[in-house]
Amino acid sequence: MSGRGILFVMTGASGVGKDTIRQASLPAVEGLHYSVSATTRERRVGEVHGEHYWFLDKVTFKGMADRGEFLEHAEYVGDYYGTPTRAVRDALNCGRDVLLELEVSGARQVKKRRPDAIMVFIAPPTLCELERRLRGRGTDAEEKIQKRLARAREELRAVREFDYVVVNDTISTAVKDFIAIIRAERARAHRVTEQEVDLFLREVRA
Amino acid sequence: MSGRGILFVMTGASGVGKDTIRQASLPAVEGLHYSVSATTRERRVGEVHGEHYWFLDKVTFKGMADRGEFLEHAEYVGDYYGTPTRAVRDALNCGRDVLLELEVSGARQVKKRRPDAIMVFIAPPTLCELERRLRGRGTDAEEKIQKRLARAREELRAVREFDYVVVNDTISTAVKDFIAIIRAERARAHRVTEQEVDLFLREVRA
Repeated sequence: MSGRGILFVMTGASGVGKDTIRQASLPAVEGLHYSVSATTRERRVGEVHGEHYWFLDKVTFKGMADRGEFLEHAEYVGDYYGTPTRAVRDALNCGRDVLLELEVSGARQVKKRRPDAIMVFIAPPTLCELERRLRGRGTDAEEKIQKRLARAREELRAVREFDYVVVNDTISTAVKDFIAIIRAERARAHRVTEQEVDLFLREVRA
Repeated sequence: MSGRGILFVMTGASGVGKDTIRQASLPAVEGLHYSVSATTRERRVGEVHGEHYWFLDKVTFKGMADRGEFLEHAEYVGDYYGTPTRAVRDALNCGRDVLLELEVSGARQVKKRRPDAIMVFIAPPTLCELERRLRGRGTDAEEKIQKRLARAREELRAVREFDYVVVNDTISTAVKDFIAIIRAERARAHRVTEQEVDLFLREVRA
């Protein structure tokens, strides 16, 4: 129901389950294009270049940033993350809906440049539970965990700045919520075009 | 995710399939209370008083209207329709979400009194198809059918005044859309309360 694509931004704290929700949602949503981010952080076991992230070295990343080739980019706990602009713009112009998965600072930059972006914040049921998940993941040193928790605390206080909040308590419920948001946004009345109204009005002429 | 209930209003032309969508959706949505309308129109075969409508005579209806006991009421093709206020208000105050199913004129009255109501317009794929459904239903005389179609044409032109548009082409898709809208609206960030933010922030104190 729209001539141009919708830009969805999924955001939330590290460890809250964004990856899992995205991976479970994408096969169930037709026509949603996931735009892969670039990062300078170290590749984790099982992660694939171009699928999970574009893993770039810092020199390459900074060059792209200097040439304005990112829709957003941010430093987060010592590493860089960014969204290459062109792929997003091209998909939206072709009428495809696009999903970005971003740290909160990056999500805020996108909202500034594209106020029409739909911002979905994934919240942990509690900070206590988020801490448990971060430790369970076993990828971060204690100092990084503390930094992530401090940041998560600030973000949760400001949760109402986003468009939607999905609480990731049980994953299946969070996935259903996320899919519902995509579906509902596609049905928003303000996206109905003149052409679609004309189609509704098609009738048998007497 | 809200201290007070959400008021959903499903509307659209006669014959577009509102009843069918509602009946298929309600069992799949937890905690959504359908508020039965009152009407003076003739009861159809299979319709139950208090379940499909409160079937009132015109004198009773007008008495309630004069006493201001309707959230909205309207005359439509010679009959009266109205929503008793108290049941809606009580449910919302108890934090229950409420669904109304209304003719478009009634839906517009509700939106004026309750701008926070979420308006879902059910559209036929085309007017031509709506005409086919109205004739297939076999309940209306030719004159009523023509009046309904004329009104539907005007409503479809103004479809963007609503919050959501669900095209009832195949019923299963329309039902999925409607359920998604309920689910997504419950996840809107502006509905998150201070108490819920406090809950997010719960952590283990060192």
